[in-house]
Amino acid sequence: MNGAENLIRTLVDNGVDTCFANPGTSEMHFVAALDHVPGMRSILCLFEGVVTGAADGYARMTGKPACTLLHLGPGLANGLANLHNARRAGVPLLNIVGDHASYHLELDAPLTSDIAGFASPVSGWIRHTNSAHTVAQDAADGIAAALEGQIATLILAADTAWSESSSTALPVEKKPGSIVADSTIARTRTALQSGEPCAILLNGQATSQASLEIVGKISKKTGARILADTFVTRLSRGAGCVDVERIPYFAESAIEMLAPIKHLILVSSKAPVAFFAYPGIESVLAAPECNIIEFAQPSHNIPEALLQLADAVSASGVSPETVSLELPELPTGALNGESIGQSLAHFMPDNVIVVNEAITSGMMLPPITRATRKHDWLDTMGGAIGQGMPCATGAAIACPDRKVISLQADGSAMYTVQALWTQARENLDVVTVIFANNRYAILQIELMRVGAENPGRNAMDMLDIGRPNINWVKIAEGMGVEASRATTSAEFNRLLEYAISRKGPMLIEAVV
Amino acid sequence: MNGAENLIRTLVDNGVDTCFANPGTSEMHFVAALDHVPGMRSILCLFEGVVTGAADGYARMTGKPACTLLHLGPGLANGLANLHNARRAGVPLLNIVGDHASYHLELDAPLTSDIAGFASPVSGWIRHTNSAHTVAQDAADGIAAALEGQIATLILAADTAWSESSSTALPVEKKPGSIVADSTIARTRTALQSGEPCAILLNGQATSQASLEIVGKISKKTGARILADTFVTRLSRGAGCVDVERIPYFAESAIEMLAPIKHLILVSSKAPVAFFAYPGIESVLAAPECNIIEFAQPSHNIPEALLQLADAVSASGVSPETVSLELPELPTGALNGESIGQSLAHFMPDNVIVVNEAITSGMMLPPITRATRKHDWLDTMGGAIGQGMPCATGAAIACPDRKVISLQADGSAMYTVQALWTQARENLDVVTVIFANNRYAILQIELMRVGAENPGRNAMDMLDIGRPNINWVKIAEGMGVEASRATTSAEFNRLLEYAISRKGPMLIEAVV
Repeated sequence: MNGAENLIRTLVDNGVDTCFANPGTSEMHFVAALDHVPGMRSILCLFEGVVTGAADGYARMTGKPACTLLHLGPGLANGLANLHNARRAGVPLLNIVGDHASYHLELDAPLTSDIAGFASPVSGWIRHTNSAHTVAQDAADGIAAALEGQIATLILAADTAWSESSSTALPVEKKPGSIVADSTIARTRTALQSGEPCAILLNGQATSQASLEIVGKISKKTGARILADTFVTRLSRGAGCVDVERIPYFAESAIEMLAPIKHLILVSSKAPVAFFAYPGIESVLAAPECNIIEFAQPSHNIPEALLQLADAVSASGVSPETVSLELPELPTGALNGESIGQSLAHFMPDNVIVVNEAITSGMMLPPITRATRKHDWLDTMGGAIGQGMPCATGAAIACPDRKVISLQADGSAMYTVQALWTQARENLDVVTVIFANNRYAILQIELMRVGAENPGRNAMDMLDIGRPNINWVKIAEGMGVEASRATTSAEFNRLLEYAISRKGPMLIEAVV
Repeated sequence: MNGAENLIRTLVDNGVDTCFANPGTSEMHFVAALDHVPGMRSILCLFEGVVTGAADGYARMTGKPACTLLHLGPGLANGLANLHNARRAGVPLLNIVGDHASYHLELDAPLTSDIAGFASPVSGWIRHTNSAHTVAQDAADGIAAALEGQIATLILAADTAWSESSSTALPVEKKPGSIVADSTIARTRTALQSGEPCAILLNGQATSQASLEIVGKISKKTGARILADTFVTRLSRGAGCVDVERIPYFAESAIEMLAPIKHLILVSSKAPVAFFAYPGIESVLAAPECNIIEFAQPSHNIPEALLQLADAVSASGVSPETVSLELPELPTGALNGESIGQSLAHFMPDNVIVVNEAITSGMMLPPITRATRKHDWLDTMGGAIGQGMPCATGAAIACPDRKVISLQADGSAMYTVQALWTQARENLDVVTVIFANNRYAILQIELMRVGAENPGRNAMDMLDIGRPNINWVKIAEGMGVEASRATTSAEFNRLLEYAISRKGPMLIEAVV
């Protein structure tokens, strides 16, 4: 057994059985080992941003890490933006980054770079594995680090991969989440029972269906509002789920929403701040006098903490309010974000996974789809665009029996458009809706909001991705994905119904 | 005048008048300033790898830096692979990376990241400009740093961009290259006159037509062979140019080529090493007993140093050998790397710029095009694929009166396929030839060469980018670029002749 084989064996033995890969020469022994060690499924992506975004989506749906396989520093670099997003999502993820043989590094060959330097801003754990004797334990340590909800990066020297290796590692045990202190529970109870306006702000594990049910009990008992961040890692919503209010994207609206709240209880979330700074607008969104309670962080045992809190406010026996199914009529007339939302809400099948990177066009989608059939909703977490289509790809690999709907702004879609090819190769059950408005519409809004006055032709050209318009049908077909274009609601309804009725990838270019 | 306007004014005043851009909210004041300060041309790219690769191509053809405009850490991260390549090319390049307003940073908003950390592995110079009072001098210092042949990264806080700014900077003066020591010239002369086999290994500025003519004189006088690295920044070649031998890519062949050489004289190059390590093969390519002389580094005044050396060996009055025009007949029959090379050599117009990222399919192209009309040849320098099409884009912006031919492997093309859109928007005169073999052919070779034995189905799947085959005609048309497919030499000849005869971007999918 060589180092690469021992690495894969260790990964598989510890439940890491899915690899998103874009290998190069220095990873050839890992690639060869895929046939020598059973149990690892490797999925080829044609760009590393797809690799890392898919690993994020996979982790959100399975709760366990996929590994990536990346080629040296530049391969890792191409995946960094979606690793930034994955870091913000707090998902477990293990990068395997190949490196030159250790004796080759000092020669400074063209592809030599500071891999750990590239990895550092996104990784909670980094290790060079420079010996076949340590590769198994290095891999196990990497998995353990990833399971803490962070990016672990293992840099695998080529000679480690090809050298004889027989060492083993102790099995990885996932640490249980820590317990919330009694004093924190007491303080939170006091706030909830104060009679003053309270809100519970959720993200991460706290927006699972199970957690939401407990929060729903607490809310019904105490009157606390249930909020979620503007962008959520994975939110259970729709009919039968406990409803949450989302904090608006624009700072002014968020400040207005949060203004009345006297106690804001954070569960796997942070004190809300504006996405960007704007001249003359506060960056901190809660009112200055708001009492912010950090109830539980992602590293806590969230369901257990919520159960304790429910108990503390005597809500355990309460039945929470849930959303009743209410499907909109099919829209007619012009196609726009609102009509697309109605059509989605009408047709979305039960248990669908929605991956949202629709940006400006998608701002209406959460309220419109609030009372449709039960589904999971996944947002881009770090704000780095180009995460949606890879995330949908990874979610589909994770959940082969569930339909995935990928709601995608056109500008953002372009960053990691190669994801479509992997969806075609793996015949993934993903319906992609491209909101084709031919512009960076969010930037046209933001340009005014930051006070950049009197934009001229040169400025507006930088926000306009028309001239030429992108033909998404051709691009999708070029990557092997069936595609069609809708310019009216009637056309969109027909295409969406068809896309949902069949299995396999399809793209709808929705001209809005 | 605000900080963004002062920044652009300083850039333009110092000759940096071209910006490759993919902006976001934190760069909106820079974007608005494009209309308030005259003289900056900004070119929108739909992915940051295109931005940075285009800036590389632009710098190679103009000798001066373009600036990039990148959105926060993730925007920079997406451009890092081609910044790695640009670093290896030793080109001047100035990144402008927007950052949150300084007071917003501590709030750790979703897009906050360690921008300097991302920049560090590729940048020779990094500065945060956190005050509108220093932005002009910061920009001038960045340009001066870039002009030393390195990547300079200026991190521009949003509040620096929007605050009032009236400061100015002293004009940037480009430092002249340093002079090679007399002792080095004497030592080199001794080697050249030793009667033992000598070779002069060139790259960077030493492969310009003017430098090559001097090297040609030295070669004719002393019998030294003229070599260039496997990959060159910009090589003048074809009819009327001094001929050079290229070091082969595969280590075994390179070792064989270099074995007889007793004195290897490096001019803007480094002692040659294998691209990758292979079990049982030397990584250092020159013979152990070879005398390696570092004659001149990129920071030297290369033409001046070569003139001194020519003088020292009494070669100044010699007429160098040059290549005579010899065009191949048009190929017939099957389409493959060799026949495409013949067709190219036949049709390439005078003074064309060839950007080569054809990888395996392109290995035959340099010898076949050796005696065609005079042209410049640009390779990917750092080995990070996805540089070719962006580089061609930047070269075409730099040289609007010259045709650009972009020779592109299909696997590599996928990484930065968005470059085609910018070629369409700017109506750039670029003919892209996609060598569509539907596989990572180089990796199929490398898999065997690194000794990874008995590859099975899983391994081979990772090297196969068919299933589905990529339809490059549709992808190009989807981005607004005219495209057609050739499956025979006759079809390719006809398409290439047509593409060269017209102005504007066109893509030929060559099925090989």
